[in-house]
Amino acid sequence: MLLEQLRKEVCEANLELVRRGLVLYTFGNASAIERERGLVVIKPSGVPYEKLTPEDLVVTDLSGKTIEGRFRPSSDLPTHLVLYQHFSSVGGVAHTHSEFATAWAQAGRAIPCLGTTHADYFHGPVPVTSDLTVQEIAHDYEKNTGLAICKTFHGLDPVSVPAVLVRGHAPFCWGKNVAEAAHNAVILEAIARMAYYTTALEKNAGPLSSALHDKHFFRKHGSKAYYGQAGHKTS
Amino acid sequence: MLLEQLRKEVCEANLELVRRGLVLYTFGNASAIERERGLVVIKPSGVPYEKLTPEDLVVTDLSGKTIEGRFRPSSDLPTHLVLYQHFSSVGGVAHTHSEFATAWAQAGRAIPCLGTTHADYFHGPVPVTSDLTVQEIAHDYEKNTGLAICKTFHGLDPVSVPAVLVRGHAPFCWGKNVAEAAHNAVILEAIARMAYYTTALEKNAGPLSSALHDKHFFRKHGSKAYYGQAGHKTS
Amino acid sequence: MLLEQLRKEVCEANLELVRRGLVLYTFGNASAIERERGLVVIKPSGVPYEKLTPEDLVVTDLSGKTIEGRFRPSSDLPTHLVLYQHFSSVGGVAHTHSEFATAWAQAGRAIPCLGTTHADYFHGPVPVTSDLTVQEIAHDYEKNTGLAICKTFHGLDPVSVPAVLVRGHAPFCWGKNVAEAAHNAVILEAIARMAYYTTALEKNAGPLSSALHDKHFFRKHGSKAYYGQAGHKTS
Amino acid sequence: MLLEQLRKEVCEANLELVRRGLVLYTFGNASAIERERGLVVIKPSGVPYEKLTPEDLVVTDLSGKTIEGRFRPSSDLPTHLVLYQHFSSVGGVAHTHSEFATAWAQAGRAIPCLGTTHADYFHGPVPVTSDLTVQEIAHDYEKNTGLAICKTFHGLDPVSVPAVLVRGHAPFCWGKNVAEAAHNAVILEAIARMAYYTTALEKNAGPLSSALHDKHFFRKHGSKAYYGQAGHKTS
Repeated sequence: MLLEQLRKEVCEANLELVRRGLVLYTFGNASAIERERGLVVIKPSGVPYEKLTPEDLVVTDLSGKTIEGRFRPSSDLPTHLVLYQHFSSVGGVAHTHSEFATAWAQAGRAIPCLGTTHADYFHGPVPVTSDLTVQEIAHDYEKNTGLAICKTFHGLDPVSVPAVLVRGHAPFCWGKNVAEAAHNAVILEAIARMAYYTTALEKNAGPLSSALHDKHFFRKHGSKAYYGQAGHKTS
Repeated sequence: MLLEQLRKEVCEANLELVRRGLVLYTFGNASAIERERGLVVIKPSGVPYEKLTPEDLVVTDLSGKTIEGRFRPSSDLPTHLVLYQHFSSVGGVAHTHSEFATAWAQAGRAIPCLGTTHADYFHGPVPVTSDLTVQEIAHDYEKNTGLAICKTFHGLDPVSVPAVLVRGHAPFCWGKNVAEAAHNAVILEAIARMAYYTTALEKNAGPLSSALHDKHFFRKHGSKAYYGQAGHKTS
Repeated sequence: MLLEQLRKEVCEANLELVRRGLVLYTFGNASAIERERGLVVIKPSGVPYEKLTPEDLVVTDLSGKTIEGRFRPSSDLPTHLVLYQHFSSVGGVAHTHSEFATAWAQAGRAIPCLGTTHADYFHGPVPVTSDLTVQEIAHDYEKNTGLAICKTFHGLDPVSVPAVLVRGHAPFCWGKNVAEAAHNAVILEAIARMAYYTTALEKNAGPLSSALHDKHFFRKHGSKAYYGQAGHKTS
Repeated sequence: MLLEQLRKEVCEANLELVRRGLVLYTFGNASAIERERGLVVIKPSGVPYEKLTPEDLVVTDLSGKTIEGRFRPSSDLPTHLVLYQHFSSVGGVAHTHSEFATAWAQAGRAIPCLGTTHADYFHGPVPVTSDLTVQEIAHDYEKNTGLAICKTFHGLDPVSVPAVLVRGHAPFCWGKNVAEAAHNAVILEAIARMAYYTTALEKNAGPLSSALHDKHFFRKHGSKAYYGQAGHKTS
């Protein structure tokens, strides 16, 4: 894929986060990777969204070195890079401080699957990372945030659960491309909000049965999916 | 009624759900039935609302067979069909994942009638279905969802209570036509939100007295209704 | 005042309630009185706001008899009439089902004065009426709702506390004219919302001290008011 | 700086508070100081925002005497003046009754630092003032409000914690200029909202570790900051 096209997609995904009310001022950032050359396109740090154009985005290699761009990349770039290095099928990453997902992250609680809306997108709870140590905070903080995410996903498939809550911080989401990453960030916020209301109504609201959870997840994902128009011939 | 007119009404009702903030992306669907020929007009599965036109809608018969349309119908079609088969006076069905109604569904709690706003539209609590069995989930899941709704309405009049919460899932609403079904979905969300706030303020907030509940319901419904301009001659 | 002018003001106040998100569909109504002739201008029942024009409003006398207008008046007219009859300084009334004020009404709880925003507008808690008896519901329900409000205000000055919560129903607000009545409905909702959040944070959040309550109320009201530009000569 | 330019900035900051949904009707006010001559530019009292122009703003000296302007200044002017007198590095002040920050103020609770969003802007909890005495309310109330804020900041750096909750009232925020003051008011509301949701999810949600709190605060503030484009040469 041409970088020019990827710049457009990353710019559009960043703006989608704004349109959906997920970011305030310059909070949040989205990026995409071009796997062949190992190039990452990411939002510049602290630049207002109203003025963001594809040309403002920063291109780096997987070590974080800027290849193209006038601006400094998002300070969360090292977290994105770790995710690209460890999650080989991920093509895009989106990070927001959306209100309800952040509240769950601040409460240090995974978001349990309480309904089919959640099950449609996440095959299991949205997990929360462990606290970083003082050392991990002091040196390479953003990289260590990425490593803490990867540690949380030991034994978990990042394709089936395309989001995480960084404890005391906020969510990171991903997808096969940056549009899907942003889409998952929007869905995550909706799910976090409904899970909040649900637990307020019923403190012990249990997780959805695994039968129903599987039913909904595989209605939308995998070879037996039958939601949407994929594989349907329109004549 | 001509199918062309029904297509317009179904398209408009689907868009009303979006305008009122009840659906996110492609969540939700609305349909209508033409009773004479037994034809159902429904939203296609997973098609973005921004692009939805009357021509995109799918027409099926009551067995779910597509009669007209390039797209695959909503995956919830079998639930709609069961409702049309069992609730003979229903002309339209609307399904959303609206936030507060879904939270009550996820909490597994019926929405009690806590005020006259509720009483104006629903003659009794908005009930919640029982869990489906593993078998009912594995085979004909969407049809069994419809049957679970019908079972919940044994002894209840679907005209007086035009909505249900599917446990762990979300609401289904209906009406004499699809516009009324969508209208009821909007009202249900408002009622669910206020009931949430009310129970947070007062855990044991009791149901409205039956005298007041009846008063409000029959002010708007039935032969003695005196709300609105129905039966009023404007000169 | 000419009725034509009053029609415009009542229409505008009704639309202000919509713009501020206080009414859904045809919920709510606002009216004004022309004291000299004892004429009341009120919204018609169940007419969509989008189409509301000053000409659609209904003019009645204080017995509720329609003097001008093609439409049936709001079904809540008798409540408005009782308020005009008992509260001699009231020039306008607004009724909504705004979410948080309605939640307090449904919870059967007066809104305590928890801060200066409340104290700026209401000199004391916003009271809640008692339940109506079965008889009061069965006959002249809307009139009896008005009488229940008046009973709640025995010993209270409706000018200092220009709103009430009708238990199990919703708020009624008033003012020296219909614009002020609608304004108070907007403020009431904001106050109800903040009181809700406050009590969730601190169950026993106490009422504001009377010293601070008086200070704020009389900064804006009465002969010693010094908020705004009233009595200030701009040169 | 020319007063004309400062008038524009103060007008713009007041309008930003409206655009961000932080003020209702005429609630709230923002001001700026021109330190050389000791002149303060502030919103007039009770003037609708829709009509606010730079020419409507009032210029006073540090004793509160009007130097320029047709209108009476905001009734909260004496609070602003005390802040300018005691906090020498403050160039702008913004006061709102934004919902969640006000709820914390009404609950009499400081906003604890529960996450990195808070840590990015406030180096410690957002404190709450003590109650004023009856005497302090009766005489020079607005000035005493300012003094209560200063008392709360004994031993605290107003640059590191650019906001306070006035108990039973609402927040005051500040910054090196009025745009930053308004920006901090917007951030404060977002933080107050997320802290509310967090404590609802987890009553005992602890404060962020000081290591992480420092990391985030100093990523954005001070000589070692590396967020944004400051100090970055774009080529």
